[in-house]
Amino acid sequence: MQDVFITGVGITRFGKFPNETLASLGRAATLDALRDAGIGPQDVDVISCGSARSGILNNHESGVGQLIGWELGIRTIPVYNVKNYCASGSTAFDVAYMAVAGGFQDVALVIGVEKMSVRAEKGRPITSDGVEVETDFGFTPPAVFAASAAEHMADFGTTREQIAMVAVKNRKNAEHNPVAQYRSPVTVEEVIASPSVAGLLNLFDCCPTGDGAAVVVLMSPDAVRRHGAQKRAVRVAASVLASGEYDQIKPLTTFHLDVLSSRKAYEKAGIGPEDVDLAEVHDAFTITEIIHAEDLGFVAKGEGGRAVEAGEFSIGGRLPISPSGGLLTKGHPLGATGTAQLVELTQQLRGESGPRQVEGAKVALAQLSGGFMESDLATSSMIILAR
Amino acid sequence: MQDVFITGVGITRFGKFPNETLASLGRAATLDALRDAGIGPQDVDVISCGSARSGILNNHESGVGQLIGWELGIRTIPVYNVKNYCASGSTAFDVAYMAVAGGFQDVALVIGVEKMSVRAEKGRPITSDGVEVETDFGFTPPAVFAASAAEHMADFGTTREQIAMVAVKNRKNAEHNPVAQYRSPVTVEEVIASPSVAGLLNLFDCCPTGDGAAVVVLMSPDAVRRHGAQKRAVRVAASVLASGEYDQIKPLTTFHLDVLSSRKAYEKAGIGPEDVDLAEVHDAFTITEIIHAEDLGFVAKGEGGRAVEAGEFSIGGRLPISPSGGLLTKGHPLGATGTAQLVELTQQLRGESGPRQVEGAKVALAQLSGGFMESDLATSSMIILAR
Repeated sequence: MQDVFITGVGITRFGKFPNETLASLGRAATLDALRDAGIGPQDVDVISCGSARSGILNNHESGVGQLIGWELGIRTIPVYNVKNYCASGSTAFDVAYMAVAGGFQDVALVIGVEKMSVRAEKGRPITSDGVEVETDFGFTPPAVFAASAAEHMADFGTTREQIAMVAVKNRKNAEHNPVAQYRSPVTVEEVIASPSVAGLLNLFDCCPTGDGAAVVVLMSPDAVRRHGAQKRAVRVAASVLASGEYDQIKPLTTFHLDVLSSRKAYEKAGIGPEDVDLAEVHDAFTITEIIHAEDLGFVAKGEGGRAVEAGEFSIGGRLPISPSGGLLTKGHPLGATGTAQLVELTQQLRGESGPRQVEGAKVALAQLSGGFMESDLATSSMIILAR
Repeated sequence: MQDVFITGVGITRFGKFPNETLASLGRAATLDALRDAGIGPQDVDVISCGSARSGILNNHESGVGQLIGWELGIRTIPVYNVKNYCASGSTAFDVAYMAVAGGFQDVALVIGVEKMSVRAEKGRPITSDGVEVETDFGFTPPAVFAASAAEHMADFGTTREQIAMVAVKNRKNAEHNPVAQYRSPVTVEEVIASPSVAGLLNLFDCCPTGDGAAVVVLMSPDAVRRHGAQKRAVRVAASVLASGEYDQIKPLTTFHLDVLSSRKAYEKAGIGPEDVDLAEVHDAFTITEIIHAEDLGFVAKGEGGRAVEAGEFSIGGRLPISPSGGLLTKGHPLGATGTAQLVELTQQLRGESGPRQVEGAKVALAQLSGGFMESDLATSSMIILAR
């Protein structure tokens, strides 16, 4: 097995863009990433493309990778089209990582893309694939995580204000992120006063839906040298996927698969959670950032709310989380989210993040969950990058 | 890179089974494959699952691998859900092959599954993903390949009877295949007299749609030893994927991607087409078996029709093609087709194919095309197995 490096990243703005397509979004982010890596389409050996809902929403179930490759004149190479719920982009990354680390290919393009703004036309809610209990009985993601929030407050004394502070922090981070979907600041009071979505989770506690694409270029050590990409290359220290949980669904304040995959990732990278300088996590809801921070070992179980309040997860704090603004604020176009996390962390580790730079960052972690923890049809992705 | 072996295969009957689900089909084939490999669900390190239309047809776009794993109590391992048109099962195989060959995992389950019989309820034709020119203008697969057939006849003197003989041969093979969808013999006259579908292609020139699952177990050399699977293990000599053609669409009598991927596969396996003892190809239409046989180098371009007539591709002939009955007769449940080819070839190389055994077979090739050659959103998979 050989080392793998990220040598180029590209991203579109996240938001609702009715005039854009999977192809146009993917093309824009890919061109951005190729330029960043200093290579052309002809240098790409393999495409791995993640999108979660391109079939049901856009009638492009299989060939999204080919579609985007075709736009760029990329031909005859292997293309993998990968689906794994919200972790589709991360799973596409893992496939490309294997292709390069295993010595099968030298230069891989990992494309994450989603176009969700057509959803309204379809007149149906976005629910998790095939999970009828949620669709039929209204046990939707906000409802599930509202139950998590209530349990976290009851078990650990987490306050409503602490939960709201996640949104406040991530909005503040997004103010300096030009690609983020929502960039205006909010206050704790505004979060708590925003319209209720489910239980105590309000509008500003929930991530938006949207369109977008994010792309990373992976290279083998040989390719890094050949393309002179050493200077800004970021090493992939671990990529771990764990799927299909079968355990008890209670308590709702911990996700066993994330505990498992993070420990495996730390072991592979030869580090512990105390070595992580910054992280992007699956903050689809305010409460989930708190739970993930605990499950990943950044703080003890139950201490996440207090850590947010103390500013530990803010830029300038002990371990900044969601410096990009996270899913909550940057946005969550499903298939693009996993690769977008890697765009942010790569720029941070290179010291290219401008006003939202985490100073001196050497080790960064990206975590995404996919599917429904409650249904056993889940997946957890953990990717560690290092400079 | 280490060697990879197929040590277990499992398959359901192919056909229209309204009472079966993706989960029940996948479970049955997986249990079959695990038994054949002499292992249990707990021995599996990774699942790679291919299905082409599970989102649009079955509302399960992402998590088919987790769904089937869940049925078997398989948990916490990585699951990849892979889509690539008709080559979805083959692409899932290629991902699992990388996982084992690259040393990431020891035991991989490759699941191909599709449930197409719900199509009728949806009231829409199955057309290739997002290829509007075909959907809107009726340039459907049968129409495209009818044009190929007409061109092949005009350019090379191939006769209508020779084209029909592919269906006759493959029906004859399927007579001895208990999983095949259509097993009764047909004559050249019956093929030519069957109802017209498009141009000169009639009902018996076209593969059926259906439901089914096929599974293969892959092992590293270590795992083969550990599980005592040496005796019936079949080595993967090459797995090659080529996607996203960009060339001229004329002539319609050759598919450049297949020429390319087959040459790469021969090179990787260290063999030539003359070393192939038997093959399963993408005989979705009678004419395509002829074209593929030529593109893969089994006969010179234009000679495929005459080779069928001379019995060269029959069991007992020089290079038997579609001994299982092929897509034409065994059936073509999209995602399951690629893994089903490997089930057949593995059984053949083990000498376990009973009345349809190809005697003394040592090298076997599986070829599938995905997407539409005419649209640039294509893929070609070539897998070579050896004993």
